[in-house]
Amino acid sequence: MKCQRCKALACIALPSHHAGFCKDCFPLYFTKQVETAIRREKMFTKDERILVALSGGKDSLALMLELKLQGYDVTGLHIDLGIPNSSDKARAKVENFCDQNDLKLDVFEMEGWGMPIPDVKQFSSRPVCSVCGKMKRHHFNRIAREGNYDAIATGHNLDDEVARLFANTLRWDTAYLSDQGPCLPAEEGFVRKVKPLFRLSEFETANYAFLKGIEIHSDPCPYASGASFTNHKQLWGELEHRSPGQKFQFYNGFMQRGKPAFATLDKETGATLAPCNLCGSPTSVETCGVCRIKASVQEKKAEAEAAEA
Amino acid sequence: MKCQRCKALACIALPSHHAGFCKDCFPLYFTKQVETAIRREKMFTKDERILVALSGGKDSLALMLELKLQGYDVTGLHIDLGIPNSSDKARAKVENFCDQNDLKLDVFEMEGWGMPIPDVKQFSSRPVCSVCGKMKRHHFNRIAREGNYDAIATGHNLDDEVARLFANTLRWDTAYLSDQGPCLPAEEGFVRKVKPLFRLSEFETANYAFLKGIEIHSDPCPYASGASFTNHKQLWGELEHRSPGQKFQFYNGFMQRGKPAFATLDKETGATLAPCNLCGSPTSVETCGVCRIKASVQEKKAEAEAAEA
Repeated sequence: MKCQRCKALACIALPSHHAGFCKDCFPLYFTKQVETAIRREKMFTKDERILVALSGGKDSLALMLELKLQGYDVTGLHIDLGIPNSSDKARAKVENFCDQNDLKLDVFEMEGWGMPIPDVKQFSSRPVCSVCGKMKRHHFNRIAREGNYDAIATGHNLDDEVARLFANTLRWDTAYLSDQGPCLPAEEGFVRKVKPLFRLSEFETANYAFLKGIEIHSDPCPYASGASFTNHKQLWGELEHRSPGQKFQFYNGFMQRGKPAFATLDKETGATLAPCNLCGSPTSVETCGVCRIKASVQEKKAEAEAAEA
Repeated sequence: MKCQRCKALACIALPSHHAGFCKDCFPLYFTKQVETAIRREKMFTKDERILVALSGGKDSLALMLELKLQGYDVTGLHIDLGIPNSSDKARAKVENFCDQNDLKLDVFEMEGWGMPIPDVKQFSSRPVCSVCGKMKRHHFNRIAREGNYDAIATGHNLDDEVARLFANTLRWDTAYLSDQGPCLPAEEGFVRKVKPLFRLSEFETANYAFLKGIEIHSDPCPYASGASFTNHKQLWGELEHRSPGQKFQFYNGFMQRGKPAFATLDKETGATLAPCNLCGSPTSVETCGVCRIKASVQEKKAEAEAAEA
């Protein structure tokens, strides 16, 4: 197979695009896909300040580098989860990456905030992945809001988006279906959220990160169980293999024809949002869910320590 | 495992219902599912005349027997497709079954109508399965309309419905999504269409047919290629195995929450229907699609015969 662009020998085949690229032209294809995503979804402009969530994985670091190369005003935000033998490695990768590429970085420590994730695992009855995700989204939004950023960018790729859309579709979860997409506009207390890699597969972001020589954190989280999203991704791997391009067609078809149908349904919630009395984040009750989980975990931890003493 | 009803040894396990049944109680469970479908979806009453499409397979014969046992006024309709070494066998199974069970039967012959399916395969450029399906639906509706039937019942089971819904969802085909369901009300020129087995899986209808001693036609159609629905059924087999009940949840969730969203979208078509100038079936153009395909196939056949002579 020849490179679609320069006719040299291709090293990356993209059946969904009926194309292949060599190692020099693939990043140009990648850039074009990100540009198209930003332009068509009106994600942000060069005058705006973007906070990029950096886990240390291939997707978030590829996104950060690409946005910087395209000339956007980006600042990284890494959340140090405080998980032994894991979080320190991820953080080091993010810090080295930002140092080497002269990128602004903000680090928020869950331990300093009084809630390292091991405490959640030990003292909360809820699934740790669900609570951890909730906490991260909370701090992304809070830090973006307090820092007057215009948008929060995350490294979600097409496979992430399709697996999530598929899970929501299997349940016909209309609340989530009317609220899923690559660009969620700002609302009272919530900063705009964008996913500039949504047109690119995991295979493509991994190739980009490799070709750009990015050193990534690739260890799985020690607390992750490999739940239904992993199964859905496997299933979608088969569907895509059988019919290349089906992932993007499914996602894009949803955005074109599915989402508008769900958006016309009346929103179920009539709840008005007000700032949380503890942290100031928007919530429909007095104290937000994150602050309540934090209080509960800290209380249980104190009880356990008192019982031991 | 014990029978949920009589506590004897169960011979049929239904993980999606957390239940098992013995060979005597399983048909009672089956009956209840059909009763629930008819009642909840308001499919038909005992005062109405139902035309049941009988292919000769397990689903259609199981449906016919069950509706008769429940006391409904049913008449079978078999379409003899005219495919050598196949259609005669299917027809014989249907005729024997109706004889043995004292059931009214109407047989329509595609050959007598001037369009045996082998001619479609040879002289039409369209996929034969698509044209054959279109022809069958045309005649089901025409015969029901001309015979003043109140409803047409087909043996589609949960697996058929889920595979079709899944295919339509993958494409977010809003026209089909707003028009899929176990009970489609009558419209100008179209008789009501119902699927009383939609709550039951293929495994369940097969067991019912076997336990009732129904002799079925089980050879696959010689023209069928085993296309995407077969793949989708396999994929759904895996999803159901992983999470029993997911098929019904997906279908039922669609009916509860998905379909209403698509129904609120404005119908795209503004076309008014009028009777076809050749056959009288409702169509938005002068001559309906079925009559046009028939004319084209017959013309090509005549040309081929003239060239040979």
